[in-house]
Amino acid sequence: MIKILVDAMGGDNAPYATVAGAVQAVNKDKELYIILTGRQAEVQAELGKYKYDASRIEIIDCPDVIDMNDVPTEAVKRKQSSLIAAYWMLKKQDDICALVTAGSTGATIVGGQLILGRIRGIKRPALCPAIPNSRGGQTLLIDCGANAECKPAMLCQFAVLGSAYAKAGFGTESPKVGLLNNGTEEHKGDPLRLETYKYMSEMKGVNFIGNVEGRDIMLGECDVVVADGFSGNIALKSIEGCGKMILGVMKKEFSATLGSKIGYLFMRKAIRKMRAQLDFDKVGGALLLGLKKPVIKSHGSSKPATIANSIANAAGIYRNKLIPAVEELLAAADIDSFTVPCNDD
Amino acid sequence: MIKILVDAMGGDNAPYATVAGAVQAVNKDKELYIILTGRQAEVQAELGKYKYDASRIEIIDCPDVIDMNDVPTEAVKRKQSSLIAAYWMLKKQDDICALVTAGSTGATIVGGQLILGRIRGIKRPALCPAIPNSRGGQTLLIDCGANAECKPAMLCQFAVLGSAYAKAGFGTESPKVGLLNNGTEEHKGDPLRLETYKYMSEMKGVNFIGNVEGRDIMLGECDVVVADGFSGNIALKSIEGCGKMILGVMKKEFSATLGSKIGYLFMRKAIRKMRAQLDFDKVGGALLLGLKKPVIKSHGSSKPATIANSIANAAGIYRNKLIPAVEELLAAADIDSFTVPCNDD
Repeated sequence: MIKILVDAMGGDNAPYATVAGAVQAVNKDKELYIILTGRQAEVQAELGKYKYDASRIEIIDCPDVIDMNDVPTEAVKRKQSSLIAAYWMLKKQDDICALVTAGSTGATIVGGQLILGRIRGIKRPALCPAIPNSRGGQTLLIDCGANAECKPAMLCQFAVLGSAYAKAGFGTESPKVGLLNNGTEEHKGDPLRLETYKYMSEMKGVNFIGNVEGRDIMLGECDVVVADGFSGNIALKSIEGCGKMILGVMKKEFSATLGSKIGYLFMRKAIRKMRAQLDFDKVGGALLLGLKKPVIKSHGSSKPATIANSIANAAGIYRNKLIPAVEELLAAADIDSFTVPCNDD
Repeated sequence: MIKILVDAMGGDNAPYATVAGAVQAVNKDKELYIILTGRQAEVQAELGKYKYDASRIEIIDCPDVIDMNDVPTEAVKRKQSSLIAAYWMLKKQDDICALVTAGSTGATIVGGQLILGRIRGIKRPALCPAIPNSRGGQTLLIDCGANAECKPAMLCQFAVLGSAYAKAGFGTESPKVGLLNNGTEEHKGDPLRLETYKYMSEMKGVNFIGNVEGRDIMLGECDVVVADGFSGNIALKSIEGCGKMILGVMKKEFSATLGSKIGYLFMRKAIRKMRAQLDFDKVGGALLLGLKKPVIKSHGSSKPATIANSIANAAGIYRNKLIPAVEELLAAADIDSFTVPCNDD
């Protein structure tokens, strides 16, 4: 039994999308047990629309909802909110494995740090989605939104965290780490990048390959791309917008003429495969890496399928024992391997 | 006759791509006259491969070449280099209309400022490509690489420059300007974004619609997206990488089975149209906006078609009298319209 909390009130389409996604997830994975936190009546009404095994979905009534405009450090005090109540359960109950939320990114991060707590030695958790790349693998982009302002020491820790994720989560032997920059040459970038480059080159235990550019994320030039949360977020969302535009163009062009409609019949499989590769709802959210249990931040505009994929991702991370593996890698390794050769301030 | 300088030695594929691109351009546009700056013998050898009207392509021998690792402020002193020689000709000869280079971005920017000179009142030129969006129009992204480090006053000037470009270049009446950020809410972003948001909201003559995200560039939520050169570059190249990956997937999937091959025959037109929309070589480079004449920075990895498109773009900008129109908009307007309500430092 894998117990996963879902913040039923989080996201633009909640509770419709969160509840529908939870139902899809339990119907697909017989080991799952979902705890929905949210306004009992609203969540119950949504649940009533679907067929599912009622012994595997539970509602915890939380009358309060945090929205995108709430100040995260204040929001985290609201214990009756669907997100914060979930965090307290995640912290206190050993049998609960993970949390999925499509709600406020800020509150998710602050709650993670203040309530759930960080892996020993980690200063700042970071959002880290696994983005499908053109080599058929995935590129881990860390950070993509948790820390808008970063110092070199933080970027160096992201390199360690991302490497551990690539090893433990995807079996990559010596993950190649690139620093996201506005050019590949060593002298490129702003002072943050210039300083980080210097420190990262000296890090033992991190296979630093130098600067990479935005295009290298999807081209898969490395396994881990390290960014501050601001530019990482810009990269992730730019890619998402490009994918969305292309899906739109495909839809239009492929039904424009009789010829293309006939062609479509022959190419359905190929097109479906292409669509799947472009469908960022399948990414399964971004892992908030650096916390003691898996917390998945799903897109604010998550649809039911997005939530279902994020839940499946959370279950997978739990099954693969990713967090203990990361902790072990960090703790067991020679301390030199993770020395960040710069101060935090 | 439209005389355009092409830095024949600039870019990864020079002089092959620059010369071939110049030939394609003159063969397509009967009004063009191209001046290639570069090593005479090498350029001549490339030119010898093609058929073209020899009275419309000229070579200026420049024995020196600036490469990506040269320090821009030093490189700009090398008057015998293909790029700097071109800049001096552009400055001194009234009948030369524009410059196209795929060479060092840094040297192109420094040369533009120190040799060619800026439009009156403009403190920093910025790279501004016109990116095709899903509304069938284009989104101007300014800056995407000229200024890695920015202050609020610079971003405010980019808003003015971008608006003038949208008006003069694309006839957009009251161009919508968005600030590229890691969320749309007013409180989002790092201190640079927070401060800029405040100032930009107070700007008269700029139709500021608030924060936009990376995805809005291609979805076309606004006409002008203002960014610092660092994150703008990340956005542009992330989009480019996504486009490249998708073209690769298309190529593979559409020839994977007999069915898809048959389908392809019916869908050729639709697929060609889709490809064209994804082909970032067609963007025609990025205008270095803020200088006294059009300077187009083409991609370092430009192929012949990319160079030809950049030349066509430069010719179009000259024909549409974009620079004088921008100057006029800046000069004629009530000074309040362009007041940047913050200091440069």
